[in-house]
Amino acid sequence: MKIALAQIDTTVGDLRGNSEKILSALDEACRRGASLAVFPEQTLGGYPALDLWEEPGFAAANEKALAALAKKVRGTAALVGFVSRWKGKVGKPVRNSAALLHNGKVVAIRHKTLLPTYDVFDEARYFEPASENKPISWGGLKLGVTICEDAWAKDPSTSRRLYDIDPVAAQAKAGADLLLNLSASPFLRGKTEVRKKLLAEHAKRLKKPLFYCNAVGGNDEIVFDGGSLAYDAQGKLRARAAFAAEDLLGIDTKTWEGATVAPEPSAVGQVGEILTLGIKDFAGKCGLQTAFLGLSGGIDSAVAAALAVRALGPHRVVGVTMPSSYSSQGSLDDAQALAKNLGIELRTAPIAGVYDALVATLGDKWGKGTPDLAEQNLQARARGVILMGLANKAHRGFVLTTGNKSELAVGYCTLYGDMCGALAPLADAPKRLVYELAGWLNSDRQIIPSNSIAKAPSAELKPDQKDQDDLPPYDQVDDALEAWVQSRLEPGRVARAVGDRAVAETLLDRMDWSEFKRRQAPPSIKISSKAFGVGRRMPIAKAGWRVRAGL
Amino acid sequence: MKIALAQIDTTVGDLRGNSEKILSALDEACRRGASLAVFPEQTLGGYPALDLWEEPGFAAANEKALAALAKKVRGTAALVGFVSRWKGKVGKPVRNSAALLHNGKVVAIRHKTLLPTYDVFDEARYFEPASENKPISWGGLKLGVTICEDAWAKDPSTSRRLYDIDPVAAQAKAGADLLLNLSASPFLRGKTEVRKKLLAEHAKRLKKPLFYCNAVGGNDEIVFDGGSLAYDAQGKLRARAAFAAEDLLGIDTKTWEGATVAPEPSAVGQVGEILTLGIKDFAGKCGLQTAFLGLSGGIDSAVAAALAVRALGPHRVVGVTMPSSYSSQGSLDDAQALAKNLGIELRTAPIAGVYDALVATLGDKWGKGTPDLAEQNLQARARGVILMGLANKAHRGFVLTTGNKSELAVGYCTLYGDMCGALAPLADAPKRLVYELAGWLNSDRQIIPSNSIAKAPSAELKPDQKDQDDLPPYDQVDDALEAWVQSRLEPGRVARAVGDRAVAETLLDRMDWSEFKRRQAPPSIKISSKAFGVGRRMPIAKAGWRVRAGL
Repeated sequence: MKIALAQIDTTVGDLRGNSEKILSALDEACRRGASLAVFPEQTLGGYPALDLWEEPGFAAANEKALAALAKKVRGTAALVGFVSRWKGKVGKPVRNSAALLHNGKVVAIRHKTLLPTYDVFDEARYFEPASENKPISWGGLKLGVTICEDAWAKDPSTSRRLYDIDPVAAQAKAGADLLLNLSASPFLRGKTEVRKKLLAEHAKRLKKPLFYCNAVGGNDEIVFDGGSLAYDAQGKLRARAAFAAEDLLGIDTKTWEGATVAPEPSAVGQVGEILTLGIKDFAGKCGLQTAFLGLSGGIDSAVAAALAVRALGPHRVVGVTMPSSYSSQGSLDDAQALAKNLGIELRTAPIAGVYDALVATLGDKWGKGTPDLAEQNLQARARGVILMGLANKAHRGFVLTTGNKSELAVGYCTLYGDMCGALAPLADAPKRLVYELAGWLNSDRQIIPSNSIAKAPSAELKPDQKDQDDLPPYDQVDDALEAWVQSRLEPGRVARAVGDRAVAETLLDRMDWSEFKRRQAPPSIKISSKAFGVGRRMPIAKAGWRVRAGL
Repeated sequence: MKIALAQIDTTVGDLRGNSEKILSALDEACRRGASLAVFPEQTLGGYPALDLWEEPGFAAANEKALAALAKKVRGTAALVGFVSRWKGKVGKPVRNSAALLHNGKVVAIRHKTLLPTYDVFDEARYFEPASENKPISWGGLKLGVTICEDAWAKDPSTSRRLYDIDPVAAQAKAGADLLLNLSASPFLRGKTEVRKKLLAEHAKRLKKPLFYCNAVGGNDEIVFDGGSLAYDAQGKLRARAAFAAEDLLGIDTKTWEGATVAPEPSAVGQVGEILTLGIKDFAGKCGLQTAFLGLSGGIDSAVAAALAVRALGPHRVVGVTMPSSYSSQGSLDDAQALAKNLGIELRTAPIAGVYDALVATLGDKWGKGTPDLAEQNLQARARGVILMGLANKAHRGFVLTTGNKSELAVGYCTLYGDMCGALAPLADAPKRLVYELAGWLNSDRQIIPSNSIAKAPSAELKPDQKDQDDLPPYDQVDDALEAWVQSRLEPGRVARAVGDRAVAETLLDRMDWSEFKRRQAPPSIKISSKAFGVGRRMPIAKAGWRVRAGL
């Protein structure tokens, strides 16, 4: 038998468009001679549809779209994900389901058993779990169908087990000949390796071939990286679909004909491709046309602009320099060099006039005494308003912020200033990773000017300012960020990672204190195990909690 | 026996301060001759601590604080909530727990069984549920201890049952003499009635007296309204603690001596008190001093300012008028009258200079052609930057936004403009409710100028603009909002509620489309069953989903 892995990019809520995509992929699978095409989790309605899952009529519309789709499925069967109504009297009203469609009919329906409820996942909020799932008998075979988290009962990346049942093993025990998993597994750094280890282990331990179809594409903060996988009954990797792109593999389960292993980018290349796809899909799925970015001449804005150009093309990206009296000629030169390298339009809007008008309007306490953070915020906000103004006058224009995760972690950024934007592509990339991305972007030819990479980072909000005057070195910021936010180590271990107790304390305080800024930050693109955003839910009114808890 | 209901206002994460509060309340309970004091859910660490619950060391610090607290508990026993580590090999690492402390020791510990995972609640994200809970034998009695949601197995406000076990009934069945419930149940309109119905029904059906201690106070978007309750074994209400204020009742379980029933404000009065407490606690728990509000002369900013004065006092509130050439003299007069009525400082900062400088900086496309939304946004953003500038120069200054829920629902508000602020006190109040609040605020004496109430709402962002030129009448907006967002009716029923299919379609589209604005909105104060904010999780990139789903 030939199985197709149909790795498609769906849009949340777009039942009609997603159905059309499924049918196109089925046509292609049929041309390749596949008997069965496996699609990603929640193929019909997209993942994550979040509160749409409990919206009146959404599950019923899913079932209706499924029935309509089934009528068009002929020779090649389709295993697609959708949301179904749970008819039981107690519990959540819907389930996360998969249906086998063939010859105009819905042949069988199965449901997800393990509902991830951590980080960006809220499935216990929405879904009633399956109580039991048996293999689907079809075409002389028993298909062991599971959905995403069902395969993660023993997550090799965590020491703790969340679940005491293993739905994939249960399928094998119930006699499944093939293991099929429909997934919507988001990218995060290192995830491709964890996934391979996990799935190889299932196939090897259970002695069954395993076909894993992952979603691909960005939905708000989450990007699915594709890389669908096939393993033989010895746990050997036989096929892998493209990374961060739509793909369709047709694989003979006996001879492994058609089983190709797509190349995987380097670690930093994966991040670059994911951010590119995240920007592209956010713009595409929101109907946005032209991205505006403030170009400071620094590395963050340069990398953000280069990723935007990869995602949208140079004609849909506009750079804007907004110099003040604190801006150096070097910064302007660097911004101009970048715009030239990228082939994008560059506009210039000096902020002096707006800044002076603001100070004149603000009255007594302004422009006298020693300037403080309020003066710096004012400059950042003048730039934010200018950028938004340019975007608002353009046809479907939008702003991309350029700040990185290290700044956002310690609150080295201005609400309604440099935090203005529809999407924050680098907000999950620590400063060190931004440098790595610059190297990756420059690997073919110089795009990011070498001066933007070499010079000391500066916000240029006061005379001769360097970030390092206001912050510990970024290496320490990043060490603290990774230890505290991502690895969730205790404060003592954060201090050891940073190498300096006092510096660590300052950084921990800043990270806690700046929660109010992050609550109003634009959506970022998740690339780490713990991004700021929907997957991290911290109270604002909790200042001093560590000290007052004795930590 | 005498039982105290110790309705205290705790701060998230403040183990030290909350422990001190518990001890003060215990002293008072002791003075009243109580044998046992019942505290709210998660007394020690506050509710909701969200991801702090899974933060390294937080549960251990809770246990340590509990042990330290126990050592100080003498004659009057304390039943307090805390988070405990779950030692099992599988599942979530912590549990939502209650401990009985007496004579220097932890006498018994019990855990929460039902974990709410809907709306603002994410307990399945954090907690391992109790597998079984027996009554606590103490002082010759069997205490049937449950925690918050444990009492909501049969929620009278919903038609669907979420749970198939009833932990309160289980306690009674296991021989409990008294039913005790530790709660952190947030306010929402109508909730006090639902709670009374629910608890009376438990007591009556199980023929046991019931003592319910609710939390009080604001934590970010959520405000607990207190109103702790005691019922006798016939289900008769015997005592109720204060609404939206700390309180301590000492109640004799036999004679009902000390059982007083605090008055409950009117429906609109409840909302007013909750918003006041929400502002007060947000400022207090974040260490904020002076609130700045833009005063347009309209009803929203007048009501927001009046609530801020109730919360903080007139010396901690500053009003700012920011007139443009579109502002009427009437608007300025109304703002001045309001400031006078409230006894607050009023500053004036006309925006013409800033606006002109922005237009001059923005270049070609500005100031020519027909003004569009971009020009209106620019005015709102000039005001936002000015307000933030004033707050940033003040000692611990902060901005309160003044927009209402109806505007936020349809996106009739400007990101980084009138949406700038640390807290949005009216963002869960539909326009109609804002009028009701104005009436309530004026019940003793005229605070909100009658002209602000009587005149047609206007954003004053273009000549002779009225909100009703850009929007359907607010009654229709509010009907759509309540039908779609709160009652979650299907589009056809929304149209019937609005009374006009075309208007309803426009409103539904606007409500969906403006999700990107709400994602970056400041925290609001929840007063409805479905507030925008943490309890409503909608994808951004889903435009057109209704139509494409055939709804």
